[in-house]
Amino acid sequence: MGASKPVSLNLNVRGLGLSATLAINEKCAALRSEGREIFRFGLGQSPFPVPTPVVEALRLAAPEKDYLPVRGLRALREAVADFHRRSDGIDAHHDRVLVGPGSKELMFLLQIAFYGEILLPTPCWVSYFPQAQIIGRRVSQIHTRAEDEWRLTAAQLEEGIADTQDDHRPRILVLNYPGNPSGTTYSATELRELATVAKKYGVVVLSDEIYGQTNHRGEHVSIARFYPEGTIISSGLSKWCGAGGWRLGTFVFPPDLDWLLDAMAAIASESYTSVSAPIQYAAVTAFHLGVEIERYLWHTRRILRELGGRITSTLHTGGVRVRPPEGAFYLWLDFSERADTLRARGIETSTRLCRRLLDETGVAILPGAGFGRDPHELTARLAYVDFDGSKALAASENIALDTNLPEGFVDHWCGNVISGVQRLVAWLDQESA
Amino acid sequence: MGASKPVSLNLNVRGLGLSATLAINEKCAALRSEGREIFRFGLGQSPFPVPTPVVEALRLAAPEKDYLPVRGLRALREAVADFHRRSDGIDAHHDRVLVGPGSKELMFLLQIAFYGEILLPTPCWVSYFPQAQIIGRRVSQIHTRAEDEWRLTAAQLEEGIADTQDDHRPRILVLNYPGNPSGTTYSATELRELATVAKKYGVVVLSDEIYGQTNHRGEHVSIARFYPEGTIISSGLSKWCGAGGWRLGTFVFPPDLDWLLDAMAAIASESYTSVSAPIQYAAVTAFHLGVEIERYLWHTRRILRELGGRITSTLHTGGVRVRPPEGAFYLWLDFSERADTLRARGIETSTRLCRRLLDETGVAILPGAGFGRDPHELTARLAYVDFDGSKALAASENIALDTNLPEGFVDHWCGNVISGVQRLVAWLDQESA
Repeated sequence: MGASKPVSLNLNVRGLGLSATLAINEKCAALRSEGREIFRFGLGQSPFPVPTPVVEALRLAAPEKDYLPVRGLRALREAVADFHRRSDGIDAHHDRVLVGPGSKELMFLLQIAFYGEILLPTPCWVSYFPQAQIIGRRVSQIHTRAEDEWRLTAAQLEEGIADTQDDHRPRILVLNYPGNPSGTTYSATELRELATVAKKYGVVVLSDEIYGQTNHRGEHVSIARFYPEGTIISSGLSKWCGAGGWRLGTFVFPPDLDWLLDAMAAIASESYTSVSAPIQYAAVTAFHLGVEIERYLWHTRRILRELGGRITSTLHTGGVRVRPPEGAFYLWLDFSERADTLRARGIETSTRLCRRLLDETGVAILPGAGFGRDPHELTARLAYVDFDGSKALAASENIALDTNLPEGFVDHWCGNVISGVQRLVAWLDQESA
Repeated sequence: MGASKPVSLNLNVRGLGLSATLAINEKCAALRSEGREIFRFGLGQSPFPVPTPVVEALRLAAPEKDYLPVRGLRALREAVADFHRRSDGIDAHHDRVLVGPGSKELMFLLQIAFYGEILLPTPCWVSYFPQAQIIGRRVSQIHTRAEDEWRLTAAQLEEGIADTQDDHRPRILVLNYPGNPSGTTYSATELRELATVAKKYGVVVLSDEIYGQTNHRGEHVSIARFYPEGTIISSGLSKWCGAGGWRLGTFVFPPDLDWLLDAMAAIASESYTSVSAPIQYAAVTAFHLGVEIERYLWHTRRILRELGGRITSTLHTGGVRVRPPEGAFYLWLDFSERADTLRARGIETSTRLCRRLLDETGVAILPGAGFGRDPHELTARLAYVDFDGSKALAASENIALDTNLPEGFVDHWCGNVISGVQRLVAWLDQESA
């Protein structure tokens, strides 16, 4: 009898592939190593370096070798609570902070701990759904509409809940803004309306604000302002601090959800134990947001705002529907106006669209199907991150922050992004084969 | 309706506390901060610093910010495969290495991926069982016996399987050696016999060899030599490299278990994503085992061997049954010969034994009940790590490696461990109250 018994694989895991964003990243790397010119608009990794004071803090903390407390180093939890108090105007407390090796891992643990339904407005980030699948949780998707600019409305949320005729069902609503994949965010009014519905039904809101500090105008507002007792704020170093590969995420809980925090900490103690000690010490510096880091944030926002606006215009000329970005580094492309010509070229699904685009132009974007949308809806996510963020940042630092970037700046420093988008538009305009 | 619905907590998680080792660590820290003199023999953390070349490598890698491949940085996977080829004489391949944020997390993912029964010889490490509980897996414990020196025998394994009258049940046997909590290891002959049974029933062996390099004579042997096709070797930086707080563990799979590796990588991509990039770069240096690291290993082994032997003798004078240690930094204490006097003092369980000992002497050890043993069996784990490993290491470096440590060395550099053990023995010898 051999040890080879794939029959003993958990059914929830059978056929599960690599996460879509990571898979495209690994595919692009392979194509590039074959010599293909590839425009890497797939993986949502910040193009910018980790701010220098944070790198220096990691160097200093290199000898730290002790297992840190499960919930996180106290100094870090204090810095995180302080960060949310100042940035979001909420009453965060360090005893209600949980530090994990990435907010993705924390969301995974949340889904293990919470026995209830996950409400996912789509399009949404690629990992929420497979996490639920692995753990065996029920997901209810709420498909947002193009006419609502792909935002969940309070009416839709209320309807989604009322339809089940089960007001008491335990639920977590995952709300991500500035949004991946939308690149847009919610207004304070919209958040207040959503909060009212969540409160009415006792829905826990997992507010994924990992892009909060990348709001292009520095004007991020958290739903926790309107629903503090039921909101968990998720953040981390990956996006605004450019440290995706460092793996550090944070959850902040309200007192009413202590039972959930305690359960997650117990699971953490039996799985990842605690986050890497040197990384936690370095993160204290990041969350303190000193003047150097604030400056870094404003420069990166200016570059992203300028570049995002620029390629949005280019895409409009190609008949692609896309909202001007408000945060993060994504655009959600809607090709519905080009559906006829695409269909004439044999393209009827978002997956086929992206595969053909990659094969024929080297432009890698992710199909809408990966974000929970109907496979036949011709949508896709473009991450405008394929440029050298260190160089762009250094160049921006020579230009006073109270001015706009000069003509030609993004062409020069983010040329690959602009070329890729132009190539995408040219491809759309091709005669059908 | 409030968001406070602890009713929606996963039943498998209700009442789950912090992992026992982490809990005692946090309790000791609290007692110390109250001014109590505490002998911290609870948490199994290496007392030694991370070797200097590895710390330097982390400093150099501080700016590394990219998301690394899910399975791990290629250079690290190569170093890990090479490490096992050289140390264990097995045919490890870098494509079959999986890097995780601690081997504990990898075991958690393994239990999610594998749909089958977990065979746990007790006493065993505290986290295997609660992991299975969280995920909802069935555990079969096999209680080893004092007369077998707390080692699983091939006959016991065969019996445990035969008793179920289900030869085809998918099973994972978790085998940890040098052992936590035993401090002893298996001989090549014993491993060969266990391998024969595992092979016969197609049992996957999770061979937890995280203490392999701490074998006090540098003579670790892996069961993979005798059962390569069915063995997963688990290792990491936490113990032999003193970097528990860094959180990096590794699994090496045989080709027959690719299906399990693939499933675990898929789950990894939806949970922890990849291990912290700077830590992975630094780990390459660790697994390469250059001459400085080899020297470090021999010095740390010599100190642990000497100290472990010394306190074993002291414990014997107190009527505690304990095997001379062969690896790691644990002793498994069997107080059965003192059961009568302990009972006269109102101590009838291992938990009560440890609580009373801590309250009355400040000596913190972990009860056998936490390691899967009958609550009334008077056993406990002692981790002899409460000394300044940096100082002890520096002192040892002045003494040629081919000699024994001089008289008085451990008294001087590991005095707290010796005092604590003496205090324990004195407490046992007290008249019953």
